[in-house]
Amino acid sequence: MVYVGVDIGATYIRVGLIDKNGNVINKVKTKQPSTGDENVVANMIIRLIRDLAMDSSIEGIGIGSIGPLDLKEGIVPWAPNAPIRRFKVAEPIIKAFRMPVVLGNDAMAAVWGEYLFGIGKGADNLIYMTFSTGIGAGIIVDGHLLVGKDGNAHEIGHLVIDINSGIQCGCGGYGHWEALGSGANIPRVIKEFIKGKSYKSRLYDKLTKNGNVSTEEVFQAYYEGDELARDFIDNYLARVYVAGLVNVISAYDPEIIVLGGSMALNNKDLFKGFIERYLRHYLAIPIKPARIEFTEFGDDVGIIGAAALAIRTPDTLSKYVERYKRFLS
Amino acid sequence: MVYVGVDIGATYIRVGLIDKNGNVINKVKTKQPSTGDENVVANMIIRLIRDLAMDSSIEGIGIGSIGPLDLKEGIVPWAPNAPIRRFKVAEPIIKAFRMPVVLGNDAMAAVWGEYLFGIGKGADNLIYMTFSTGIGAGIIVDGHLLVGKDGNAHEIGHLVIDINSGIQCGCGGYGHWEALGSGANIPRVIKEFIKGKSYKSRLYDKLTKNGNVSTEEVFQAYYEGDELARDFIDNYLARVYVAGLVNVISAYDPEIIVLGGSMALNNKDLFKGFIERYLRHYLAIPIKPARIEFTEFGDDVGIIGAAALAIRTPDTLSKYVERYKRFLS
Repeated sequence: MVYVGVDIGATYIRVGLIDKNGNVINKVKTKQPSTGDENVVANMIIRLIRDLAMDSSIEGIGIGSIGPLDLKEGIVPWAPNAPIRRFKVAEPIIKAFRMPVVLGNDAMAAVWGEYLFGIGKGADNLIYMTFSTGIGAGIIVDGHLLVGKDGNAHEIGHLVIDINSGIQCGCGGYGHWEALGSGANIPRVIKEFIKGKSYKSRLYDKLTKNGNVSTEEVFQAYYEGDELARDFIDNYLARVYVAGLVNVISAYDPEIIVLGGSMALNNKDLFKGFIERYLRHYLAIPIKPARIEFTEFGDDVGIIGAAALAIRTPDTLSKYVERYKRFLS
Repeated sequence: MVYVGVDIGATYIRVGLIDKNGNVINKVKTKQPSTGDENVVANMIIRLIRDLAMDSSIEGIGIGSIGPLDLKEGIVPWAPNAPIRRFKVAEPIIKAFRMPVVLGNDAMAAVWGEYLFGIGKGADNLIYMTFSTGIGAGIIVDGHLLVGKDGNAHEIGHLVIDINSGIQCGCGGYGHWEALGSGANIPRVIKEFIKGKSYKSRLYDKLTKNGNVSTEEVFQAYYEGDELARDFIDNYLARVYVAGLVNVISAYDPEIIVLGGSMALNNKDLFKGFIERYLRHYLAIPIKPARIEFTEFGDDVGIIGAAALAIRTPDTLSKYVERYKRFLS
């Protein structure tokens, strides 16, 4: 009796067999197909599930996908970072396995996995936040997974944290948290940051010479004590992260925020230090701060969370599961 | 068969008799008591209800109060703007009428009233926002009224919208939406705004001479075409409001945002113009904007909303109603 968890990322597709207690029995990971029609992603997932499950009897299938999703149709209509931009999810998988599937976005799945099986187990006010290429979150308030009118009630990477910023987000808006702090945007932001300044710094020299440095180089230089990297991260990026976290606390009043994503997981002590230094600068005094933790699931958070959606389906996703039943007939 | 709605504001207490369809049958309004112990507010409410209800049989009592609340105890532990800072709510009223009461904060009540009876009727993703002395909101996502671990899952006045701002909010944090845009703070913010600038403007002259102007004077001057007021409101305050609204849209994905509070209701066209001009500057392109409406309940939004909490109690408040039953024994 196993559950299937499918994690559709921009680069990889991960499929796992998960038992009812959230343990990973077996898993597989493969690159997203780079060409094909709107069924190619689902067809790859179907093959992976069949290979992995073999003779096991599948109890349920949960899917966490990159977004934005069209939850009503069960499709990804336009994935900004994936090779196949538009693909079907619910219909082909339901038809192949003749059973309902639960679909949510990847951050919804992750927070549900933390809620049922992870470090946030049983915390009815819980947030999972990922810091990597982008900044995203899955939100549980009062035991309900937030979905919203279009499944976007958690787009906290797109909160404005600097109304005066001229930096445009990938999404088109200005001054967004993600625009100022995500892995994909740091190379751009640091270029703005050095305008009119000068540093005795290898990073600064490289940036002025090549016109570009990578996010990894910025963090690497920070740990080596580089003057520019220290100024940028300690005095700017730290404030960006903490202001964003404060907004999450003020908007949802969580007990626990679980952090994931490579930027957070590779720099745990740094993140803790940021919070210690700036939380009280930004947070309203009467609001009790949330406990900040790091996910213990590593790369498996996606498949565990996706399976969790099937193991105990959130009430706010049930209506979509019902709608997908039309694909069975 | 009537319901009682109690609206505890910083300045006034309003009590209304409301029928099951949200119509106001009768109502009364009085000033908050200025001195007394922790029971004086509740005692005044009890007298008002008795006078108003007379022989009517009361079906239920709902209360919307200024906060922050301690929902578990049913008290207001520390109201920053009210004459009596700390007062009991649930216990004395339950004991007086020998029936359960439903307590929420004033913005929760307002959004619930709009959801059951108002312009947001039936919209499962709905927000009520008040713009007056402060900036506050009540939030419904997927049909659930957000409460959070301490009843603060809606403190969107305290979202950081300018990480570089040196302006401190009444709550202690920096760069908050409310600090930069609420009625109580505009006199302070405009002083910062004129630093290093000069205007041919009566408002500017008054501000530099007296060191102070009121929020009403700023808006008045705006409508008279005053140069400073125009620059401040069109190019700064408008951005503050719209960035905050965009954050609300990105955080909760609402269908409808209902605006209330004197600043919004007295300047409807102005607010609409702000949104038209700046929404696309701040909002992520893939996120569908919410419909913006103005409350049609005027000053009655508080009592109608409070009664609504009793007429159909939100699932997320039920557990508190259960806890208060200990006051009956």
